[in-house]
Amino acid sequence: MDYSAASMELHKKHKGKLEVVSKVPIQTKDDLSIAYTPGVAEPCRQIAANPEAAYELTIKGRMVAVVTDGSAVLGLGNIGPEAAIPVMEGKAVLFKEMAGVDAFPICLRTQDVDEIVETVVRLEPVFGGINLEDISAPRCFEVEQKLKDRLSIPVFHDDQHGTAIVVLAGLINALKVAGKTMSDIRVVISGAGAAGTAVSHLLLNAGVKDLVVLDSKGIIEKNRGDLNPPKQELAESTNPREISGDLSVALKEANVFIGVSKPDLVTAEMIRTMAELPIIFSLANPIPEVGREVAISAGASVYACGRSDDPNQINNVLVFPGIFKGALASRSGILSPELHVKIANAISEIVPEPTAEHLLPSALDRSVADVVSQTVISFAKK
Amino acid sequence: MDYSAASMELHKKHKGKLEVVSKVPIQTKDDLSIAYTPGVAEPCRQIAANPEAAYELTIKGRMVAVVTDGSAVLGLGNIGPEAAIPVMEGKAVLFKEMAGVDAFPICLRTQDVDEIVETVVRLEPVFGGINLEDISAPRCFEVEQKLKDRLSIPVFHDDQHGTAIVVLAGLINALKVAGKTMSDIRVVISGAGAAGTAVSHLLLNAGVKDLVVLDSKGIIEKNRGDLNPPKQELAESTNPREISGDLSVALKEANVFIGVSKPDLVTAEMIRTMAELPIIFSLANPIPEVGREVAISAGASVYACGRSDDPNQINNVLVFPGIFKGALASRSGILSPELHVKIANAISEIVPEPTAEHLLPSALDRSVADVVSQTVISFAKK
Repeated sequence: MDYSAASMELHKKHKGKLEVVSKVPIQTKDDLSIAYTPGVAEPCRQIAANPEAAYELTIKGRMVAVVTDGSAVLGLGNIGPEAAIPVMEGKAVLFKEMAGVDAFPICLRTQDVDEIVETVVRLEPVFGGINLEDISAPRCFEVEQKLKDRLSIPVFHDDQHGTAIVVLAGLINALKVAGKTMSDIRVVISGAGAAGTAVSHLLLNAGVKDLVVLDSKGIIEKNRGDLNPPKQELAESTNPREISGDLSVALKEANVFIGVSKPDLVTAEMIRTMAELPIIFSLANPIPEVGREVAISAGASVYACGRSDDPNQINNVLVFPGIFKGALASRSGILSPELHVKIANAISEIVPEPTAEHLLPSALDRSVADVVSQTVISFAKK
Repeated sequence: MDYSAASMELHKKHKGKLEVVSKVPIQTKDDLSIAYTPGVAEPCRQIAANPEAAYELTIKGRMVAVVTDGSAVLGLGNIGPEAAIPVMEGKAVLFKEMAGVDAFPICLRTQDVDEIVETVVRLEPVFGGINLEDISAPRCFEVEQKLKDRLSIPVFHDDQHGTAIVVLAGLINALKVAGKTMSDIRVVISGAGAAGTAVSHLLLNAGVKDLVVLDSKGIIEKNRGDLNPPKQELAESTNPREISGDLSVALKEANVFIGVSKPDLVTAEMIRTMAELPIIFSLANPIPEVGREVAISAGASVYACGRSDDPNQINNVLVFPGIFKGALASRSGILSPELHVKIANAISEIVPEPTAEHLLPSALDRSVADVVSQTVISFAKK
């Protein structure tokens, strides 16, 4: 199927994908008097006396803002806030469809960290949570940290942590298929943006010892003079064999490749230099670092990518709807690495006997959000 | 019926009144591939190449932001952004129910004019129009003017112009009932905030000659030294007989009282001093300046108020859904006084034979929005 053409048709037909509808009927004068004036004055008074009541009497307790500045949209790059709307609407659709969480796209006409932070702080009253989306690194780290410090509602940068959690869930099951353990494997991550950085930190948290991360200039290592602070941190905590060079150097004898970078970076030749029966997660979207057929014919034992049309999809849609469902229910933060490891384990356990082509539950499986949500709620109670 | 109790029950049951839902099904992998990745990349690319395409491919062309700072909510005053949410949700419900226009509440944690303006400017990408709501005077005038100057999408402060238009529509028909004309009548307006100021300007535009406006200190006149610039402007353009004093002075021999101020300001005694068979529009909400029974028994020929439970309701719900429907369809501004007079006439004409208890179409009449919308579209074509 030509998804581009079908998607254009769909978007034209509906003028976007979201709709804001009323949960209450407006058919009679009494309906108006209850939902609007004069009746509405009473919930207003109650909230004025106790702002916490907004969680019980308004959309606040169930509404997430999907916030972007359009600076790193899919693999398309800095295409701006208007062009980001279709993706943000898509996220909001999935929040609602997968977890019953209401979400609304906020696409900002600024790419300045402090302006983004100020704007979101001013928007807080009507939202119960902030899902940051497609904001480029390293600004995204600063935006998330500053918002976490200033807001009383949960904040979560999905491209970082949603990706990291689902990659870890997939890797847990891929290692079951391959009969290996976290501490034994060599992992190569291509991409040191939002996703690559978060995946790296979470894999270290989950017990990976030999991890090599690359940005567009090559392997991240202590001797490079061109690293920004988040990459310097990666240089300190990864690359134990202190290698340097490009992707072909990094992949030699590696067991796992995780791509969160650019289309068509990995060749069959490179895969043949990896350790026996390597695991390939090629998550650049919409076009992966290497396609399924090339990877499998070059010897990959497990292949997964982020696309909805691949049988083995690794996509953060398994994470973000449920994590916010749980965050809204428990009114708790969702940035703890310990929580992220627990969620990854919970998702991986939904597939009790994973195979090379079926690592994770389907992106359409509505039960996943409940498992994730319950994990958040249990963790918050402790 | 106890509307306060019923409203509390309704708001608790639904946790607010709005819901953000998907217009597209997400049941199969193909659905995901079309609405989300990889298909969604194509509309993103199209908009990146031509930002105007956002109007055809996203919610932008049909989504209004209902923006408040919570500084002047109903008659409740400065109750803050959280306590304003139930009203803003109510507006969004009415946008959708009355005109099929999608709207979303934006309740800002700032009451600084420039911060409000900056924030709304940054939010512009995802919205097709800005409905300002419950922002106190005189800041609201500045917010509207600055946003009009900086945004390319239509801006409209409903408390000013929605109220002014519906009051003029009501007055046109009340004068038909009373057999009088705009140029003959003495009009008193109590309240010189957002609504009172806009009603004053629009009535002058519509041909009223003898207009006296009062704020909480009394009649607005040139000799008062305590007037802010918008009130100085009113002092210049109103009060031709140059009277001064309080409401009881102003009402003597007046034909029309329009209250957009505070509960219980007008007594039966004051109404008895008005000209014969006076017209009383008592629009303070939820509690009017004078109740229907008191006004009628004191001699009023026509009584109307803003409440949904009064038979003769004058409420801007007749205006804002349709005016934004037209603004979105025509991509035109909606702040012209000439347009506002045309809309008032169009609304008044929907009731061909008005009576003292039936001046305007019902707030529930879905056909009004189309009449208003068509008026906007015709005006934009000229």
